[in-house]
Amino acid sequence: MPRIVILGAGFGGLFAAKKLAGVAADVTVVDRHNYHLFQPLLYQVATAGLPPSDIAWPIRSILSRQKNTSVLLAEVMGIDVARHEVILESEAVAFDYLIVATGSTHSYFGHEDWETLAPGLKSIDDATHIRRRILTAFERAEMTDDDAARERLLRFVIVGGGPTGVELAGTIAELAHHTLAADFRRIDPRSATIILVEAGPRLLPYLRVSLSDYARQSLARLGVEVRLGTPVTHCDREGVTIGGDRIAAATIIWAAGVAASPAGRWLDAESDQVGRVIVRADLSIKSDPDIFVIGDAALVKNAQGEPVPGIAPAAKQQGRFVADLIARRIAGKTSAKTFRYRHAGHLATIGRRSAVIEFPRYQMTGRLAWWIWGIAHIYFLVGVPSPLVVSIRWLWEYITYGRGARLITGAEHAD
Amino acid sequence: MPRIVILGAGFGGLFAAKKLAGVAADVTVVDRHNYHLFQPLLYQVATAGLPPSDIAWPIRSILSRQKNTSVLLAEVMGIDVARHEVILESEAVAFDYLIVATGSTHSYFGHEDWETLAPGLKSIDDATHIRRRILTAFERAEMTDDDAARERLLRFVIVGGGPTGVELAGTIAELAHHTLAADFRRIDPRSATIILVEAGPRLLPYLRVSLSDYARQSLARLGVEVRLGTPVTHCDREGVTIGGDRIAAATIIWAAGVAASPAGRWLDAESDQVGRVIVRADLSIKSDPDIFVIGDAALVKNAQGEPVPGIAPAAKQQGRFVADLIARRIAGKTSAKTFRYRHAGHLATIGRRSAVIEFPRYQMTGRLAWWIWGIAHIYFLVGVPSPLVVSIRWLWEYITYGRGARLITGAEHAD
Repeated sequence: MPRIVILGAGFGGLFAAKKLAGVAADVTVVDRHNYHLFQPLLYQVATAGLPPSDIAWPIRSILSRQKNTSVLLAEVMGIDVARHEVILESEAVAFDYLIVATGSTHSYFGHEDWETLAPGLKSIDDATHIRRRILTAFERAEMTDDDAARERLLRFVIVGGGPTGVELAGTIAELAHHTLAADFRRIDPRSATIILVEAGPRLLPYLRVSLSDYARQSLARLGVEVRLGTPVTHCDREGVTIGGDRIAAATIIWAAGVAASPAGRWLDAESDQVGRVIVRADLSIKSDPDIFVIGDAALVKNAQGEPVPGIAPAAKQQGRFVADLIARRIAGKTSAKTFRYRHAGHLATIGRRSAVIEFPRYQMTGRLAWWIWGIAHIYFLVGVPSPLVVSIRWLWEYITYGRGARLITGAEHAD
Repeated sequence: MPRIVILGAGFGGLFAAKKLAGVAADVTVVDRHNYHLFQPLLYQVATAGLPPSDIAWPIRSILSRQKNTSVLLAEVMGIDVARHEVILESEAVAFDYLIVATGSTHSYFGHEDWETLAPGLKSIDDATHIRRRILTAFERAEMTDDDAARERLLRFVIVGGGPTGVELAGTIAELAHHTLAADFRRIDPRSATIILVEAGPRLLPYLRVSLSDYARQSLARLGVEVRLGTPVTHCDREGVTIGGDRIAAATIIWAAGVAASPAGRWLDAESDQVGRVIVRADLSIKSDPDIFVIGDAALVKNAQGEPVPGIAPAAKQQGRFVADLIARRIAGKTSAKTFRYRHAGHLATIGRRSAVIEFPRYQMTGRLAWWIWGIAHIYFLVGVPSPLVVSIRWLWEYITYGRGARLITGAEHAD
């Protein structure tokens, strides 16, 4: 039986694995977490809107009935390309075909020491960590007698004006200005300052300019201070320096740079400047036609020669394409030679009142866009365990302005 | 305005606070967690049946509309009885009336070094820690080639035959034998061994003997090995020694001894051997009629002179009694002098098929008892945020045998 190994159970890896159900092959999925994460809603966990288990499901249970597939919880140490083996801590896993779908991580642009000061948002643990920081800041503000300390505790800086930054800023503003408004006695959470910092000239730079402007205005209406064209030049325990300005802030969240996983290094393959492996038209690497890199770990181009965006639908399409290609090759059939990306659109929410959607020929903003965003996400959740529970909770939180997942968990000794 | 301080927002403290809504007083609730925990279902979080936010809610949001009440997230350092002040890390909080409801903690009977080896179950962090240990054990068993290591990883020892121990053992057995059964490829989770160890002669010793026997038989049917009359004499990273027998086990959970919080020490008040403060008939301490100790932190006797059990309804009744007493005193009215405990019954579940209920004049076992247990708990959940979501999820998990909250989160570097 041919052995197919998939590294990473994000959207790319998981949809490749699902597509391989029923194929006469031994499929092994390796991930360092035991869950598949619905990343587009991770900011909701970080801002106490959803509990982790509403957007993450054990990979094992998703693939439980797929008898040709096994799942290993392990960290990848490296790949032996010549011997066709993936090196894990405890064993080496041999493969005939390899799909590398290890995604991306934060980039601090050479300031890796900022990571503990300004955590990023990639995993469930990142999200509960940020949730703890945000909620603890309000708690500490309630306890302090010192005006300057209180102001610093009630100031939140989000670095990066992409979708994650915009979504975090909008939701934190709503948390402070609505959800928590009545919960404190000494402080007024509505006095909190939320600052969104973007080094470039506009928010959501992959969208047309009118949508970027709309997003900025919507955030301003929510009380978010948006600062454009101002890179962060310094970061410490007391706050950040942006464009020469010093901002004292207890909570800094990093939603800026993205760096690919070490896939290029493991494979000794050519990569671009952010570490994405340069793949051929069928998503295989140049040195080996049976090794594929997909999703955020790869630099994939569309028909116009532009990079395919790093979003869930793109990763899913690549996962399915590669799985189909391998299945056909195993069956001795000819297979498609070129991956073709079909772009459905971009969407981003700004709090609970507004969203921006850019379809290829059409754009949309406002509350209707928000509902389309919501329905689209519930639709994508179908197929995972208990979408009903998630949907009901979502509606409930929306109606009540509740933040049911407002738990401070985990110890933070360093803070 | 008279100042009432409540230490601890468990069942006792929270219900005291709620009862004081509308009383002309400044009420301050101090807790070291930001959430009230529905402790009777905590074992469900530890065994991946419910996510934390289904059984824990921010104290602030529960008391948000109660305008005379403020909440402080802080650790109590001590109490200055003479000056009527509670000492927190950052400030001293003065009181006219004090309600100490700080609950209980685990006791390792002088072997406090066993705590990291055999964690106990009191907080959300304890529960996610135990959940991580249980799930990680299965993952590691899947990865090992060594038979002895695999057996050790698939052996779970629960120490203590009270309700928590019985509930944990039954649920872990179901997790291994049903929920996870199809999820692994190299191991058979059904081969896991679950051992429940009790030093005394029977399980659930506060119940009549026939119910203890029933619980033991039900656990045996679920595949749990019950060992009675065998105290744990040694505990290390490899396993436990019980009654001379050495058991190699990767996961040991402590559900045995209970010790009261340091309330007695703080108050310099007389305590019993497990640290419960000896209170007067009106639950005040001997040295000060305006300082009360309730719930698991106190030794309270019923009309027959027997200790009131350490269960949620008892703590609630005491909280309400003390709040009412203080309110009447503030209003210049006479107040009840003696707390009278009304015992509704004891209940404990054994997996999802069975439960035991002991009402004062009647007892009940089996599946009907389980449903009564479930309905009783949903009824108790009413009044907290989103009971609907919890109920739906519960029913869903029950029907599908799912374990939706099966996430491994948090790092465990020490393990």
